Amino acid sequence: WQGEFFPEIPKIKYEGPNSKNHLAFKYYNPEEDWLRFSVAFWHTFRGTGGDPFGAPTKFWPWEDGTNSVAMAKRRMRANFEFINKLGVEFWCFHDRDIAPDGKTLEETNKNMDEVVALAKELQGSKIHPLWGTAQLFNHPRYMHGAATSPEVGVYAYAAAQVKKAMEVTHYLGGENYVFWGGREGYQTLLNTDMGKELDHLAKFLEAAANYKKKIGFNGTLLIEPKPRSLQSITTAAHFLRKYGLIDEFKLNIECNHATLSGHSCHHDVETARINGLLGNIDANSGDPQTGWDTDEFMTDIAEATKVMLSVVKNGGLAPGGLNFDAKLRRESTDVEDLFIAHISGMDTMARGLRNAAKLLEDGSLDELVKKRYQSFESEDGALIEAGKADFEYLEKKAIEWGEPKELAEMIFHSAL
Amino acid sequence: WQGEFFPEIPKIKYEGPNSKNHLAFKYYNPEEDWLRFSVAFWHTFRGTGGDPFGAPTKFWPWEDGTNSVAMAKRRMRANFEFINKLGVEFWCFHDRDIAPDGKTLEETNKNMDEVVALAKELQGSKIHPLWGTAQLFNHPRYMHGAATSPEVGVYAYAAAQVKKAMEVTHYLGGENYVFWGGREGYQTLLNTDMGKELDHLAKFLEAAANYKKKIGFNGTLLIEPKPRSLQSITTAAHFLRKYGLIDEFKLNIECNHATLSGHSCHHDVETARINGLLGNIDANSGDPQTGWDTDEFMTDIAEATKVMLSVVKNGGLAPGGLNFDAKLRRESTDVEDLFIAHISGMDTMARGLRNAAKLLEDGSLDELVKKRYQSFESEDGALIEAGKADFEYLEKKAIEWGEPKELAEMIFHSAL
Amino acid sequence: WQGEFFPEIPKIKYEGPNSKNHLAFKYYNPEEDWLRFSVAFWHTFRGTGGDPFGAPTKFWPWEDGTNSVAMAKRRMRANFEFINKLGVEFWCFHDRDIAPDGKTLEETNKNMDEVVALAKELQGSKIHPLWGTAQLFNHPRYMHGAATSPEVGVYAYAAAQVKKAMEVTHYLGGENYVFWGGREGYQTLLNTDMGKELDHLAKFLEAAANYKKKIGFNGTLLIEPKPRSLQSITTAAHFLRKYGLIDEFKLNIECNHATLSGHSCHHDVETARINGLLGNIDANSGDPQTGWDTDEFMTDIAEATKVMLSVVKNGGLAPGGLNFDAKLRRESTDVEDLFIAHISGMDTMARGLRNAAKLLEDGSLDELVKKRYQSFESEDGALIEAGKADFEYLEKKAIEWGEPKELAEMIFHSAL
Amino acid sequence: WQGEFFPEIPKIKYEGPNSKNHLAFKYYNPEEDWLRFSVAFWHTFRGTGGDPFGAPTKFWPWEDGTNSVAMAKRRMRANFEFINKLGVEFWCFHDRDIAPDGKTLEETNKNMDEVVALAKELQGSKIHPLWGTAQLFNHPRYMHGAATSPEVGVYAYAAAQVKKAMEVTHYLGGENYVFWGGREGYQTLLNTDMGKELDHLAKFLEAAANYKKKIGFNGTLLIEPKPRSLQSITTAAHFLRKYGLIDEFKLNIECNHATLSGHSCHHDVETARINGLLGNIDANSGDPQTGWDTDEFMTDIAEATKVMLSVVKNGGLAPGGLNFDAKLRRESTDVEDLFIAHISGMDTMARGLRNAAKLLEDGSLDELVKKRYQSFESEDGALIEAGKADFEYLEKKAIEWGEPKELAEMIFHSAL
Repeated sequence: WQGEFFPEIPKIKYEGPNSKNHLAFKYYNPEEDWLRFSVAFWHTFRGTGGDPFGAPTKFWPWEDGTNSVAMAKRRMRANFEFINKLGVEFWCFHDRDIAPDGKTLEETNKNMDEVVALAKELQGSKIHPLWGTAQLFNHPRYMHGAATSPEVGVYAYAAAQVKKAMEVTHYLGGENYVFWGGREGYQTLLNTDMGKELDHLAKFLEAAANYKKKIGFNGTLLIEPKPRSLQSITTAAHFLRKYGLIDEFKLNIECNHATLSGHSCHHDVETARINGLLGNIDANSGDPQTGWDTDEFMTDIAEATKVMLSVVKNGGLAPGGLNFDAKLRRESTDVEDLFIAHISGMDTMARGLRNAAKLLEDGSLDELVKKRYQSFESEDGALIEAGKADFEYLEKKAIEWGEPKELAEMIFHSAL
Repeated sequence: WQGEFFPEIPKIKYEGPNSKNHLAFKYYNPEEDWLRFSVAFWHTFRGTGGDPFGAPTKFWPWEDGTNSVAMAKRRMRANFEFINKLGVEFWCFHDRDIAPDGKTLEETNKNMDEVVALAKELQGSKIHPLWGTAQLFNHPRYMHGAATSPEVGVYAYAAAQVKKAMEVTHYLGGENYVFWGGREGYQTLLNTDMGKELDHLAKFLEAAANYKKKIGFNGTLLIEPKPRSLQSITTAAHFLRKYGLIDEFKLNIECNHATLSGHSCHHDVETARINGLLGNIDANSGDPQTGWDTDEFMTDIAEATKVMLSVVKNGGLAPGGLNFDAKLRRESTDVEDLFIAHISGMDTMARGLRNAAKLLEDGSLDELVKKRYQSFESEDGALIEAGKADFEYLEKKAIEWGEPKELAEMIFHSAL
Repeated sequence: WQGEFFPEIPKIKYEGPNSKNHLAFKYYNPEEDWLRFSVAFWHTFRGTGGDPFGAPTKFWPWEDGTNSVAMAKRRMRANFEFINKLGVEFWCFHDRDIAPDGKTLEETNKNMDEVVALAKELQGSKIHPLWGTAQLFNHPRYMHGAATSPEVGVYAYAAAQVKKAMEVTHYLGGENYVFWGGREGYQTLLNTDMGKELDHLAKFLEAAANYKKKIGFNGTLLIEPKPRSLQSITTAAHFLRKYGLIDEFKLNIECNHATLSGHSCHHDVETARINGLLGNIDANSGDPQTGWDTDEFMTDIAEATKVMLSVVKNGGLAPGGLNFDAKLRRESTDVEDLFIAHISGMDTMARGLRNAAKLLEDGSLDELVKKRYQSFESEDGALIEAGKADFEYLEKKAIEWGEPKELAEMIFHSAL
Repeated sequence: WQGEFFPEIPKIKYEGPNSKNHLAFKYYNPEEDWLRFSVAFWHTFRGTGGDPFGAPTKFWPWEDGTNSVAMAKRRMRANFEFINKLGVEFWCFHDRDIAPDGKTLEETNKNMDEVVALAKELQGSKIHPLWGTAQLFNHPRYMHGAATSPEVGVYAYAAAQVKKAMEVTHYLGGENYVFWGGREGYQTLLNTDMGKELDHLAKFLEAAANYKKKIGFNGTLLIEPKPRSLQSITTAAHFLRKYGLIDEFKLNIECNHATLSGHSCHHDVETARINGLLGNIDANSGDPQTGWDTDEFMTDIAEATKVMLSVVKNGGLAPGGLNFDAKLRRESTDVEDLFIAHISGMDTMARGLRNAAKLLEDGSLDELVKKRYQSFESEDGALIEAGKADFEYLEKKAIEWGEPKELAEMIFHSAL
């Protein structure tokens, strides 16, 4: 493959809201915004367009139909041309996406090393992984789980794979490392010892945290919850607390996982934030009428605004960021669409940030919330919050005060 | 009201599987089974048949249309005649269901005392509350929450109400006390300080645990999770751990809440069990095609079997039990239906228990599970489970062992 | 009750997008827009704030706690003051909301006549019902259905009620009449003869269509589908076709019913449109994470834009319109909120209309769709569309043409 | 491949409910039952165990990794050994499953002819296709639809493919032919002309019906509805009526599609039955907590009983039957599991049939339903059902009769 991968695509520029140019930002202004966007290698460069009822539809022109190391390196060059033209500074990857399996684990690791050396060179000084991760779900060996497999050999294999993926992420200057337990869970409870499996998972994550320290990797370790594996934000948080891992891990919130859990994305981001666990956001979106993850780019400006309100309250996400764990529709088969889709996602999040900033500057929303709780800024409120108001005291107060007065409420009708 | 409430209903007897008598047990045999069934006062004696689009349909003949203390006492007599004829030993109640509000909290408490004294007398020596609870969701004062209300007066009022409900439960010999936070949650995150609200809730529960000890009540305190309040089993468990309350509370699992959370009832029961939090089960059922709680009696024998498998593994539920938090269909307007519905629920749970016992005696299911994990009964498995197998050791093993061998699996096809 | 009902609320005016006035339109400009908005009497003036777990919360100051004719008339005056201040020209009502039940049907009808006479006077020359309807779901007599009740007396009663409601709608100058079958359906198929029930429903609607003609009412008859009764747009359409009623009825699409059916609102509006059945829209919204109808005001601008695209293609909705079948949150207890909520809904639909107009003027979306199907504008396309291309001809063509060429697709990324 | 495919599996026999033999029927007795079971070729012999996050797991020993005609013929021999050992008389297939694509349509058809000739021979005299169908969803050419593709060449190609599949089904003695529109639908309404697409679909199906007659194929043509394509039973029925195709087609009800539509399987089967459209049942099941089609074998005896009640009322399903459109779990990788799974499905349906027969013989359920509607067996009921009771007559009756009397209801509690 000679020359450019996207020869017809220029460097994407900010042209403002009135631009009709599909290949320009209308809201995201790289010179003003501080959003840490990341491109997901698996969707952009390994996504095939296949689905449970359909064969692949995407045949990027640089693909030669092989899964060779040479092909992996060519793909990596396409990735960095894409990242540079798009103007972002982060990317995310699964180990098995960037380099092919060998016949043995050693050979696989050697393949990875060769591809990663090239990636390091192509990254230059400004680009780094937002996070890396090990793909512990696609291979049949993981069909019963990885860290929760009933087979000790699978557990060991997964450990070896994570070890290598952490080393590689560290080598590339990655700022986080993610655990998504796509196969940790059960097919039927009838053949499962759920307690034992969770114990194993805890030991696995503990060993990962130890290994991180041993190699001097300072990135954040992130758990990515999803319904049917580590269920939800609080399931993951409970797990971390129960096993004494709460100080070693944060969470990677994926919006489409949130909605599949029956929560809004904002709910999950905010829940993570107030628990000190907000590490990263996979900024995507599902279809509200569909019961599986469609991993669409987020285009709902109201939801983006609410998510960014939490992000700003969190003081930003760094060292985490906003990873576009989102894919083109199966019918989108032009390479140009890769750009259009990411521009759309970046503009949406930038609009969200601008709206959030406007709301926070205006202050009336914060004021409304503050006023709502002002009765707790009393002597009795302070006693309660200090844990000093027992039931007898409170009963006395309740009798003294009589029926509580109604709270004035106003419908929120903001400038979103 | 003179005489019996259910004059045409005899004491319900066990007649075996071939009986065609609607008013007999076909599976539940009170002389053999050890199931701790409980009647829910609110559904049986205060359920109206109303729904969001429809007016009440149930007008039990003993109701006089008032909410007086006299009516409350008559209702209580009906309750105990029902319980005695059905042959169960437990009942559950919300404070406001059993006695009417007065004009002040003191008057309300006085009303309660009068009704409760009668209940105590009617209980005799064999019947007790499985649990009591305070109704902190129906009254408009709680529309913004009870323990999480932004108004300090509401918090105090809720505390006073729980205080009294705990005293009453204790007085009646109740074995547990339940907290269901029907209004703890939010209408919109935009006006909510979720962190502050959860802090308040923790202080509230802490005060409850303290008060329990103060009055010498030895019953178990139970949190009842539900989507949109304390979301799910693990959300509740996380909350209890975070706030240091994990040793003071267990959980009340409601099957219909489980399915609304996207879990099977068995999943939630088993999750509670392995976390040492299985306190009680609200044995009801939802409609799999409906997105709200229909609180039907459980009639799915396969699900009942699986739930009872967990119960047996838990060594039973005592001091908890199986509470029928289930209601008649809106169109069921005959008092006889109260019996038929409960008999159906009791027979279902009894069949579940018998099936579970059969499966456990047979042993092949346990054997299958044990064999599935047998590779961990090796030296390396022991190292892993002891937290002594680090990633370097495991990598060495993975390389030594090569590709893990496939696990033999067999479809479970049991005699359910 | 003396004087104004909303003394502190002025006539709502258009102030433009920069206004911070909660009581002003920012997008809807009554002088430019042609939107036929309607106020739903049941939510605004009979909504109580009650829900399955909670007592009423709304006590509008003019309510005296009775369900008398005098109270009904006072409420009607509040309704028209509200409508006039809001500046809309339509309202919708259920018969039983506007006037109280009497002891007999005759007395009930007399009550209605008295209230309706006042409504007619208060309407003046500019205000009319967008539609009227009979409430055939709240009363216990309808618990097994109205037109599909197994009891002939209920069928007759429902007919009498619809007869009167049609007369009243006609008398008030109503432009449509709606049938929502809130209780037509089943509790369990095991006790239901679904075929017979649908036959009865058809006879009922046929009689309604006949009666409409007899009294010279020219309004459109509208069926309002909902999951669990007349399921979905196409269920209703199938019913109308099967029973030969397709020319007598159109559909009232409720957005929240669409999403509960697993469709977007746009899908249902468009499906009705292409079948020539788009009669009216209940412009509300559900909560995407909640499985029942929350009847919120629509605030999603993207969805409003798509819905209005279909409306514009339909040549508008007249004689139908946009009815706000939406309610205040349970916690909104100030009369001012009634205005704020409706303003929010009207602004959203107006923004949707403006966006739709912009998209249609721009033309590129239509162009994209046209180009997508251009291969059918060939001789062979014409043959197919005329039903003249049989399988043998098409096979010949397929062989001649070889593998179809891929269709160029582009991600839609518009100026919404 | 030499010899048997399943050498360790004997012919499956009926051993009765007490058998512990996994490879025996406990309920289905081939000598007594009249159930027309069918094996689905695509799940059993082409299912890979792959899913959106995972690679294939099933590597049946006879597979050689190629998609050659020789492999296709070997697979066909395995299929008939399976069918014979299982003891069923029907199978179902997609054209592209049984024979590989060639480079041109002619070559593809030639491949098919070769494989089909072998299938015909292997069928012998007792085995036939329950139905055949064309796979119009997997190949990328169909990504925008087949009969609803915006590209005329795709439409023609699909026609040619269906033509051949119908010929082949006819040649093999198939009793039905199925249309499942897996790609008929839209990705976004914004680029879709839904009206035009439905018109095209109608022309396509009309041409299919014509071709069927032309070749003398007497099998039933069946539409298989699914949410997101031809949505639901009534969507399909509406389509057939609107385009005048209602006499040419019946429906193939898939249980998992029913539940994904928000209906029980029984609801959809019964809805099809009362509309005279019940043609065939794909007897599978979904996971009630999962939002996509898991295509499990049905094991819910209560649901099977209800479905079979409708089937018996329909006078059976012939020429349709019960097709096991169901697959092994991804983790089931032994060929033995193919037998165990089908046995489980067959036993479940047989138990359902036995229960249904018992309920119908007993008669009390029918009696209950009959009594429920008995008020319509009056003179007035007859007038209504004849369409002769107008609103004025009914109003007179309603006034004469007064408030309808309450309907006595009893909870259904049967011997399931």
